[in-house]
Amino acid sequence: MVRQIRLNAFFMNCVVHQSPGLWRHPRDRTQDYTDISYWVDLARTLERGRFDALFLADVLGVYDVYCGGAEAALRGAVQVPVNDPVLLVPVLAYATRHLGFGVTSILSYDQPYAFARRMSTLDHLTKGRVGWNVVTGYLDSAARAAGRSRQDGHDLRYEIADDYMEAVYKLWEGSWEDGAVIRDREAGVFADPARVHRIRHEGRHFQLDGYHLSEPSPQRTPVLFQAGSSPRGRAFAARHAECVFIAGNSTAEIRRLVGEIRERAAAAGRDPQAITVFLSAVCVPGRTRGEAQDKLADYRRYGSVEGSLVLQSGWQGVDFAAAPLDTPIAALGRGSVEAHDRSDRPPDRRTIRELGEAATLGGGAPLLTGSAADVADEMQRWVEEADIDGFNLTSVVAPESYVDFVDIVVPELQRRGVHKQDYRAGTLREKLGGEARLPPSHPGARHRAG
Amino acid sequence: MVRQIRLNAFFMNCVVHQSPGLWRHPRDRTQDYTDISYWVDLARTLERGRFDALFLADVLGVYDVYCGGAEAALRGAVQVPVNDPVLLVPVLAYATRHLGFGVTSILSYDQPYAFARRMSTLDHLTKGRVGWNVVTGYLDSAARAAGRSRQDGHDLRYEIADDYMEAVYKLWEGSWEDGAVIRDREAGVFADPARVHRIRHEGRHFQLDGYHLSEPSPQRTPVLFQAGSSPRGRAFAARHAECVFIAGNSTAEIRRLVGEIRERAAAAGRDPQAITVFLSAVCVPGRTRGEAQDKLADYRRYGSVEGSLVLQSGWQGVDFAAAPLDTPIAALGRGSVEAHDRSDRPPDRRTIRELGEAATLGGGAPLLTGSAADVADEMQRWVEEADIDGFNLTSVVAPESYVDFVDIVVPELQRRGVHKQDYRAGTLREKLGGEARLPPSHPGARHRAG
Repeated sequence: MVRQIRLNAFFMNCVVHQSPGLWRHPRDRTQDYTDISYWVDLARTLERGRFDALFLADVLGVYDVYCGGAEAALRGAVQVPVNDPVLLVPVLAYATRHLGFGVTSILSYDQPYAFARRMSTLDHLTKGRVGWNVVTGYLDSAARAAGRSRQDGHDLRYEIADDYMEAVYKLWEGSWEDGAVIRDREAGVFADPARVHRIRHEGRHFQLDGYHLSEPSPQRTPVLFQAGSSPRGRAFAARHAECVFIAGNSTAEIRRLVGEIRERAAAAGRDPQAITVFLSAVCVPGRTRGEAQDKLADYRRYGSVEGSLVLQSGWQGVDFAAAPLDTPIAALGRGSVEAHDRSDRPPDRRTIRELGEAATLGGGAPLLTGSAADVADEMQRWVEEADIDGFNLTSVVAPESYVDFVDIVVPELQRRGVHKQDYRAGTLREKLGGEARLPPSHPGARHRAG
Repeated sequence: MVRQIRLNAFFMNCVVHQSPGLWRHPRDRTQDYTDISYWVDLARTLERGRFDALFLADVLGVYDVYCGGAEAALRGAVQVPVNDPVLLVPVLAYATRHLGFGVTSILSYDQPYAFARRMSTLDHLTKGRVGWNVVTGYLDSAARAAGRSRQDGHDLRYEIADDYMEAVYKLWEGSWEDGAVIRDREAGVFADPARVHRIRHEGRHFQLDGYHLSEPSPQRTPVLFQAGSSPRGRAFAARHAECVFIAGNSTAEIRRLVGEIRERAAAAGRDPQAITVFLSAVCVPGRTRGEAQDKLADYRRYGSVEGSLVLQSGWQGVDFAAAPLDTPIAALGRGSVEAHDRSDRPPDRRTIRELGEAATLGGGAPLLTGSAADVADEMQRWVEEADIDGFNLTSVVAPESYVDFVDIVVPELQRRGVHKQDYRAGTLREKLGGEARLPPSHPGARHRAG
């Protein structure tokens, strides 16, 4: 059987996710993000196209590295305003039957106890269609909003995250045994107290003592997504992640990263092929190659280089407004704020302007464009050459980017047998090829009780 | 015009809210609380009956005062398991047009910055139909689950809450001026940075420095509900609350409390009649008086005295399992854990058994029962004698209690002209008789910018 391609829509509860300036396009509807119907339309489009999941990014804090302030971000709606993504999930689950939901939640400013209940509630309400993108945050502005002077150091953030994961695993996997919920109306016993356990966690960063508040949900632990690109982030992913997000433009480089993640997972006793790797990409397809070219040219007229540099400044911790646009990036040195740590990446040889221009559509992710056949060829090439499992498709003009993909590219992928005609039954984890619950080799499974 | 009666359904995202044991009734569906359709049915029933709001209680932690452990709570599903109520709101807003949503959120274990965004997101997604029940918590088990040894003292909790309120008012009211959002596609300006303000809050308990992440929502500050019954709680309510929940069985006593709240509000420069007071009540109506009596007798067979004492032990901080059932409550002394502080209430003259039995239906709230006319008479008497504005109706068997109320009592109330035939347009605050936003006399309005 040919290798199946997995598909997520990579989106955000705001105006500009990763295509700054495109909100100005006459057909763009991202300004409707406060309206539930807009989201329901989007989710139904994705389900029609048999997407695995709608993946919702999130950020706390504003992008204020560029020019040392938030003005440019506010002017261009660059990930601000940004609303809470978690609240969209139940209503979109209600409006669909199979679509999964990956939701980003930043653990650095949240207590594990209430958070674990929030995710269990989502897993119940979606009947097991939820995933969690584990994020430690990368903006000092988020730390200041939580009353701190700056965020913890990069590696310490992952150490804290490891501790947080242990705490929530214990709540999700260890507090309620299978069969603890009896629902015996005659005997008046809802749950057997002997099979519900009080969790005591005495970690270096988190302590808790309590019963998990939610009865077991279909997946218990939600499907775990992670996107760390630094060596420490990849170590975290190899230990915890079931789905990994990866970004880059070179198949060789991506293949190397994927290989490293799978090796590390194997070294940790996990099945390396059970880790699903999604590459960030952006797609501009047309009924014909010419139509795609025209559409792309039209889109490019709306890209905002300033907005693009606002994002890059936040991600890299470097103020790209501090030097003229023609300055080579390599001349700027490393960021003073350690944000997305890409220390093992080759140096960027472009100028600031080139970086900004390249990143206006989908944040500079690989561009899949052309006819349906062109796009399908390119997707298959990536899967083969880079050993990825699928794509996180970010939008240019929304929801148009997804409508186009579903109408133009999906039938071609299905014709080639690389994209499903129908969903598998069951939870998101089952749809991704696993069992409903974490496999025994996953570190979270160690905390099972009973 | 006769005085209109306001109606909330007082409910919870769990099996047993305030009628312990009734989940065993053959028609009770509360075990379906993990299923969205169950909630959609309920919300549509309430909207059909022109309820003002579905009010969702919440608790973090388990009721472990009774017998010094959580066993009885787990056995009887007494507010455990309990799922996150916030996540229900958008989907129920999508399934209805006018119904309001009051949601309890416990501020003691949450950061104001992320919380403020969560509420703004709800207000956007519901188009201004959301209220927030401000709660400081009352269970030590919640504090332990957050890694603390016990909760803060009662009055300190309110001091912390005052500080929290200032922080979220600043974010909601002061960060984005009216008209800051321009959405000018031509000029490429989404928001005018000069009209978006960075909030610096240096409180005794909370510090933050950041922009509110959400653009202005219809109500900005959600409608504020509060239920504090202690003197300190009533002082807090007089300052902040727009809707007050009150509990008790004596019209004279309630009238005194309501008078005190309105006086305190007036002393704080607020319009005393603009505070809407809801009395907790439970209703068992019948097509005839006899049918109601039979239904009530049937319900009573399912009440659980143990479950009832689990709740009372948690609320009062007294272990009612520590003495024989025939012990007078007055002989037990005050609770060691200061929970719901009712220090200015008259002593309870009942035995433990009587307390438990009385509280199996709706937690011991006033029982409205009989024919439609009986119930309507009783409701009107309460409104007149106690100067309340309406009722928080808790359920016995759900959703049956609400279906019965809507089918049997609502038409009679409408016939008498004391219950609306249709909703007023606009936000929840407008539906309750105000403007979309906080009145100028409210302390939150002081933080407006621009």
